[in-house]
Amino acid sequence: MSQPLYVIGHQQPDTDAVCSALAYAWLKQSQEVDAVPARAGEVNPETQFVLNFWSVQTPPLLEDAATERLILVDHNEYSQTVPGAREAEIVEIVDHHRIGDVTTSNPIFFRNEPVGSTATILTHLYDEADEPIDSETAGLLLSGLLSDTVVLRSPTTTDTDRVVAERLAETAGVEIETYGKDLLQQKSKLGNKSPREMVLGDFKEFEFGSHHVGIGQVETVTPEAVLEQQAVVLAAMDDIVDEREFTTLLLLVTDLLDEDSTVLVAGDYTDTVADALDTTFTDQKAFLPGVMSRKKQVVPSLEDAFS
Amino acid sequence: MSQPLYVIGHQQPDTDAVCSALAYAWLKQSQEVDAVPARAGEVNPETQFVLNFWSVQTPPLLEDAATERLILVDHNEYSQTVPGAREAEIVEIVDHHRIGDVTTSNPIFFRNEPVGSTATILTHLYDEADEPIDSETAGLLLSGLLSDTVVLRSPTTTDTDRVVAERLAETAGVEIETYGKDLLQQKSKLGNKSPREMVLGDFKEFEFGSHHVGIGQVETVTPEAVLEQQAVVLAAMDDIVDEREFTTLLLLVTDLLDEDSTVLVAGDYTDTVADALDTTFTDQKAFLPGVMSRKKQVVPSLEDAFS
Repeated sequence: MSQPLYVIGHQQPDTDAVCSALAYAWLKQSQEVDAVPARAGEVNPETQFVLNFWSVQTPPLLEDAATERLILVDHNEYSQTVPGAREAEIVEIVDHHRIGDVTTSNPIFFRNEPVGSTATILTHLYDEADEPIDSETAGLLLSGLLSDTVVLRSPTTTDTDRVVAERLAETAGVEIETYGKDLLQQKSKLGNKSPREMVLGDFKEFEFGSHHVGIGQVETVTPEAVLEQQAVVLAAMDDIVDEREFTTLLLLVTDLLDEDSTVLVAGDYTDTVADALDTTFTDQKAFLPGVMSRKKQVVPSLEDAFS
Repeated sequence: MSQPLYVIGHQQPDTDAVCSALAYAWLKQSQEVDAVPARAGEVNPETQFVLNFWSVQTPPLLEDAATERLILVDHNEYSQTVPGAREAEIVEIVDHHRIGDVTTSNPIFFRNEPVGSTATILTHLYDEADEPIDSETAGLLLSGLLSDTVVLRSPTTTDTDRVVAERLAETAGVEIETYGKDLLQQKSKLGNKSPREMVLGDFKEFEFGSHHVGIGQVETVTPEAVLEQQAVVLAAMDDIVDEREFTTLLLLVTDLLDEDSTVLVAGDYTDTVADALDTTFTDQKAFLPGVMSRKKQVVPSLEDAFS
């Protein structure tokens, strides 16, 4: 038997990463490819809710990919891949982020589109393969789409996402706003998370020139639950900067209802960050009106400023 | 008026690079995008034959792209881009090569597929956009496809290429083998080229780890016309190694009829190259049975060996 092909999202997986891995592995299986969905970290409460809702088993954790063949979904830079991915064979990529640093020796299938979720692109790949989408798959894809676009409210949302969401909701038999609100509730659940878990829960790392930058994001309907713990959250961020040698570490606390964010900063280069985000920090905190998307409204300006 | 968007192929453009730039610019124009086809170097005799045959004007030469917005076709690594591309804004990529080192700050449309030509992918992009392909566009796309696949004979040729070629030939009103033989004749024309021009005519540069590697290719029905001048060709290769600081420089002389290649080598690391290609060099020359594709049969093993 040949080696299986793991379909896997980024570290600190979110709902789009996990649901896209599942949906794409199922598409490959329907094409007689020995594909196995996997994840690169613990699922968050929102994703667990989705998996329970659609009665789908949590994909297995892949701890070391060094000798594996991989399809990357929802990411395309090494700083976000499963451990060992630099040594693995990357055979396909489906993503909706900036073009990162993954290179290959051979020509591969790489589909990157500036849409709101990887799930949106996967819906089109099902169409291109003439493979029908059943209600369970539609439910997972819709969850990835609604999670990444904050129920079509994020500025990353495109008309394509809206059309695809309508269609997936119909197939899945749910109503977008009702199901979306259930998702947001889960996303907002800070529960009894430690400050450290808040920072690292939805966390991405970037190499901007010689700078190692980390950006966490908490999306919530109750931002005050994080911000009233500002001192301990910043202390946790300082620890993470030291341990993992970040140049700069940011935590975006995004208010899903007011559609804006507060950002906390630790590490060096605070002035560079302030310039990049066109703001001023007071006590390591700044308010960013209208900012909801790390990818679209924070990463590009930081990359420009640091590179 | 907004800044135009240049659609441009790699340096030392081949027929697929030039025809893909034209066809994709036309598709963008049909979508009300102010796109302009361009090229990153002189067109070769085969491409000139194609442009004359289909009565299409040669796209303008772009000499410096530093302040431009670019769509890259038929390449996705900086060592092959038009000068200034590192400073330019890359807004889309359509290609069929290995994934290279181009990165972006924002999410972009990047379509890379392991098929025989960029023209094959563009044919599908016309379909996805519901834009009909007229006979002139079909002629150009077919030319790119047949040129890159050596009239469907190269091991890079996929079933998709065959299906697309049939359809384009019908729309263009030409017969694949007849038109293809005319193309091969042009490709084979060494004419009164200098040895230096033979090496640099169809030439690609790669960064493998810290090594700067150049690989030229002459595709011909009369390989002896190149090989009988071996001494002066190697002297020209030595000059190019010195001037442009190559670690290693290869020239593949590919016999289109016998479907094999002879490779000449200059620079250092000849043993590494010999190991990678599983051959032995005698007087800087080796025979490679069955090798026709630089991309698929030479680049991956060299990259592995040098990295």
